[in-house]
Amino acid sequence: MGKHRLAHTIHRHDHHCGWDNSIAPTAHAKPGETLLFECLDAAGGHFTGESTADDIARMDPDKVNPVTGPVFVDGAEPGDALKVTIHEFQPSGFGWTAIIPGFGLLADQFTQAKLNLWTYDRTTASPALFGEYARVPLKPFAGTAGVALAESGRHSVIPPRRVGGNMDIRDIAAGAELYLPVEIEGALFSIGDTHAAQGDGEVCGTAIESAMNVVLTVDVVKGAASRFPRFSTPGPVTRHLDAKGYEVTTGIGPDLMAASRDAVSGMIDLLCAQHRLAPEEAYMLCSVCGDLRISEVVDAPNWVVAFYFPRVVFE
Amino acid sequence: MGKHRLAHTIHRHDHHCGWDNSIAPTAHAKPGETLLFECLDAAGGHFTGESTADDIARMDPDKVNPVTGPVFVDGAEPGDALKVTIHEFQPSGFGWTAIIPGFGLLADQFTQAKLNLWTYDRTTASPALFGEYARVPLKPFAGTAGVALAESGRHSVIPPRRVGGNMDIRDIAAGAELYLPVEIEGALFSIGDTHAAQGDGEVCGTAIESAMNVVLTVDVVKGAASRFPRFSTPGPVTRHLDAKGYEVTTGIGPDLMAASRDAVSGMIDLLCAQHRLAPEEAYMLCSVCGDLRISEVVDAPNWVVAFYFPRVVFE
Repeated sequence: MGKHRLAHTIHRHDHHCGWDNSIAPTAHAKPGETLLFECLDAAGGHFTGESTADDIARMDPDKVNPVTGPVFVDGAEPGDALKVTIHEFQPSGFGWTAIIPGFGLLADQFTQAKLNLWTYDRTTASPALFGEYARVPLKPFAGTAGVALAESGRHSVIPPRRVGGNMDIRDIAAGAELYLPVEIEGALFSIGDTHAAQGDGEVCGTAIESAMNVVLTVDVVKGAASRFPRFSTPGPVTRHLDAKGYEVTTGIGPDLMAASRDAVSGMIDLLCAQHRLAPEEAYMLCSVCGDLRISEVVDAPNWVVAFYFPRVVFE
Repeated sequence: MGKHRLAHTIHRHDHHCGWDNSIAPTAHAKPGETLLFECLDAAGGHFTGESTADDIARMDPDKVNPVTGPVFVDGAEPGDALKVTIHEFQPSGFGWTAIIPGFGLLADQFTQAKLNLWTYDRTTASPALFGEYARVPLKPFAGTAGVALAESGRHSVIPPRRVGGNMDIRDIAAGAELYLPVEIEGALFSIGDTHAAQGDGEVCGTAIESAMNVVLTVDVVKGAASRFPRFSTPGPVTRHLDAKGYEVTTGIGPDLMAASRDAVSGMIDLLCAQHRLAPEEAYMLCSVCGDLRISEVVDAPNWVVAFYFPRVVFE
């Protein structure tokens, strides 16, 4: 922390659970200023080390996925890009992953609530233990980062949109430079939904959900709004996972969603067979460290979606 | 080559351009035997160092994507998995990438034929030069590997299917162990469509298409047919590309195909702006080294597809 000169700290009680451009800013920042955001986890602290799957049904749907903010950035106007440079995550060391009935890629197949609690090394240098012998490498990131929409009213925080939000992109991690299209004066930036680890897809619907502080710098690039968010990373994004290679399953057919489901179902079957896991365990593991990739999307009429599970988890 | 004891060489003239279980095997192999396949490129040698975009229209549609084989594997029966261990590629050093009108993820936006010819180091240790200063790291693999379908008749070689075929998965490279579900006695395995490099998605419809020899071992795993092909890799799959990180664009919305198109369009715009490329050049570069990934597929109703372009290409 010593290395960043902080202009503001945005406290965790300054959070909101929907996007609404009438929410008053919790702070004003100048371009180039560095801020610390205290982020709640996606259940707002609902789960503790004593929680069980029964507590999933007790989550308040109006309080899920809180984001800390919003921050008014001086000089940001519609048509600009808000540039957010992510410097550092300070993780809490506690996390949770849930199968929430009705939510997730295979919601039709997994109808029972399940909860896995994690404790992990706050430096994230050591993989987190899952069950008795699976070890999940960690890479903290912010699942949700976005700006207010031009349209008035309250917009659910669950779906991501052209202004960002709940994108759950696992590589919006330390070092990333995120560009968000600004739609209103001041942008009104908020961030939250921090994750200690997640694979591409977030297939069961949750990651290693975990409260963290985030240190970042805001800046404005005039006239640089893109149609959708974009970002850059300064270095490799997968080396924490790839040392031992992958098991890969596929789904092949004319619909990318069906192919995604087939690829993940295939991996759950494989992990259960190879490692004697329960299907629910395999599904949660796939969500926190497996990657959904589109191998080909041109050989009409059939596309290939592949699901990559890192072998290092079991080695 | 000295390290592999070859039971058979399957010559390039023993190829076919559709899947048909009545094609007579070119060889019989025992489980555990190692074979060398001479693979034509996806245009069957149509393009040479003197070819131009005008030659694209002269491709014979009945002769595209030839595969070498088929090989009858003793003991393979319906319900088994054919295990194919890929040892080595011997690339030709010549390749081509084309925009073929009517084909590719953005076929509506790219209607003119374009051809890029490549010459590259046959050891693939050096990146291949594209234009004046883009350098594409190479990793040879087989775009097409499959077995015959149970259904009689000729089936187009273009779409991949549950038995494999034209999967265009960039990581079915040296070291991969591929498992294909067997549908007829002897499996009737064929391979071809070798690529010197390709990103996930193969977005313009072609890779660095390049003739190569492939050395592999066939084996049979009794009763192990999976619903779709699967494979494993013994080590990292992306380190040839990732050293300098990525530029990443996104597409966000309720349809994975539309989101894929938006993400790739966004990257083409970005590459053109950053590097003064023509859009057709950017599209071809995206196809040979950019990766299409599904970042989240659970935050209903909107999914995020991200397109990752490796910065090392321009550094």
